[in-house]
Amino acid sequence: LNLSLALVGFGNVAREFSRFLLSRREWLMRERGLGFEVVAIATKSRGSLMSEEGLDLERALKLREESGTLLGYGPESTDLSTPEIIGGCGAELMVELTTLDIGSGRPATDHVRAALGAGMSVVTVNKGPVAFAYDELSSLARSRGVHFRFEGTVMDGAPVFSLVERALPGCEVTGIRGLLNTTTNLVLGEMARGASMDEAIGEARRRGVTEEDPSMDIDGWDAAAKIAALANVLMGAGTNPRMVDRAGIRGISTGDALEAAGRGMKHKLIASAERSGGAVRTSVRPELVEPDDPFWSVNGTSSAVTLKTDLMGELTIVERNPTLAQTAYAVFSDMLLIADALDAK
Amino acid sequence: LNLSLALVGFGNVAREFSRFLLSRREWLMRERGLGFEVVAIATKSRGSLMSEEGLDLERALKLREESGTLLGYGPESTDLSTPEIIGGCGAELMVELTTLDIGSGRPATDHVRAALGAGMSVVTVNKGPVAFAYDELSSLARSRGVHFRFEGTVMDGAPVFSLVERALPGCEVTGIRGLLNTTTNLVLGEMARGASMDEAIGEARRRGVTEEDPSMDIDGWDAAAKIAALANVLMGAGTNPRMVDRAGIRGISTGDALEAAGRGMKHKLIASAERSGGAVRTSVRPELVEPDDPFWSVNGTSSAVTLKTDLMGELTIVERNPTLAQTAYAVFSDMLLIADALDAK
Repeated sequence: LNLSLALVGFGNVAREFSRFLLSRREWLMRERGLGFEVVAIATKSRGSLMSEEGLDLERALKLREESGTLLGYGPESTDLSTPEIIGGCGAELMVELTTLDIGSGRPATDHVRAALGAGMSVVTVNKGPVAFAYDELSSLARSRGVHFRFEGTVMDGAPVFSLVERALPGCEVTGIRGLLNTTTNLVLGEMARGASMDEAIGEARRRGVTEEDPSMDIDGWDAAAKIAALANVLMGAGTNPRMVDRAGIRGISTGDALEAAGRGMKHKLIASAERSGGAVRTSVRPELVEPDDPFWSVNGTSSAVTLKTDLMGELTIVERNPTLAQTAYAVFSDMLLIADALDAK
Repeated sequence: LNLSLALVGFGNVAREFSRFLLSRREWLMRERGLGFEVVAIATKSRGSLMSEEGLDLERALKLREESGTLLGYGPESTDLSTPEIIGGCGAELMVELTTLDIGSGRPATDHVRAALGAGMSVVTVNKGPVAFAYDELSSLARSRGVHFRFEGTVMDGAPVFSLVERALPGCEVTGIRGLLNTTTNLVLGEMARGASMDEAIGEARRRGVTEEDPSMDIDGWDAAAKIAALANVLMGAGTNPRMVDRAGIRGISTGDALEAAGRGMKHKLIASAERSGGAVRTSVRPELVEPDDPFWSVNGTSSAVTLKTDLMGELTIVERNPTLAQTAYAVFSDMLLIADALDAK
């Protein structure tokens, strides 16, 4: 198989993935019989490229890192918009890695819809499409006979979606409990050692974990998007982040955190999904956990999810201190699973 | 697909699996298009049955539970030995669930070899075949174009082998650390609360976790077999339980356990596999763990494994308080994956 790729978004994750892909070119051919070529790279404001004959990904990477833009690559530069590029590039697989507006799930959802509609398979690490429009997008993919994968949306490259889909056959997820937001976990840990919330947020910023504006994390929106994504895919919840019963950590003071530590407990921002009658109820809220809790030792930038199942009891997956490399691996693993499925046809 | 099964061993796990299979008969047909029939049930000393037309599994279960034996089932009773039944029953899948002699891996290894050699796929929860003879058996399976699965050998039904094989594509396991033996975990926990080792072992017996003779657990043999199995399959170690650098928990006194608790630590029996040059070194030994350790909160009958990987960093899987149902699910999930693979041919 020679897989043609369109990269939509060319930021940190996309460039890490690109470097990784280049470093594995020989391995892919040798171990998987898989070649690839990039036929388009679309960005919002840093230039876009398109070529049926394939682009030189190494040169595009170098240009982007040296000049901050893809302009000047050559005649493959294009003024077409991202939707036009998606419609016209003819790739088999779109790798969607744009920046997310978590309040709406856009533009990622539009990109995914356009690509699936054009008969392309899609890999994304954007929570938006799965958190806001999973049912629509997965049926669109099914009706077009293409694949839609998104392992990197929750817990970076740790396999949660693939685990349930591929390694727990016949098993139904009946509940989910997750420690899914890194910033709040780090901030609550610093506060339990006496830092103020502002100091703790500053530390999270220094470690590159949170954005300049940390409110998406602190107010629980990031965790809400992740539990919505998990509940939609694994429990058929048909929900979205705005429907999550959400509380952030602003109500917790350093005094509260110190007092909990004194009693041998810790605050954690816990995201949950539970079946309740026919519906699935999702929530994000701070909870006190005890040393026997599987999340007790999940600190720093680590994250964890517990799946409650009908046949396999309770299974917890912990990802320890991930880096950008693990997010790139999420994209890579999804690409391999799609390539296998295309190959099997 | 209509899958013909041979059950070799008809003890607790096999009967739990049988009950489960019967309860899912309609589900299997509706959701997977999968029918099944049992053409043989072989036991060492409780009678054996064989019939090309298929046995009445429900009746066999009832007879075994009411009379303790399969004798009296009818003309399907056979005096053939287990190897003769394996050779003659013509099943597509052997479910091997005999009792293991952990010192040698037999007779399970002989059963698996015979079945694969006769062109049958195999599911087992016996550690022996994978801990002692994985390389031989997996190449035999490959050469015969059949499947060999064994999810239940480590951590009951928690997917460890399937996780790596199916949900971490292209990812290499570079190290393993496991809390794999339930008895020692329970015993060390009781000792840290002041119980003597004998009292703690008594408690483990009362909870049905350990055998009458607990030495396989206490001396680290069970953990050694499990880390050998994991290292063989996930790291190509080519090892066996006797080659594991093994220490049990007999050297730990109640005083040691209480003293560790006083310092905020816990003893755990840790099994490890690490690459060292071209070889893989495996060990089982008691270690002191701290509250930040992912195994800190893994207590009672829970178990856990951490996989160190080249691309996905560190991933920990925790199984919480499993029961016999989870072991039966391990067999069921392996059967489903094999049925899918046979279907795809």
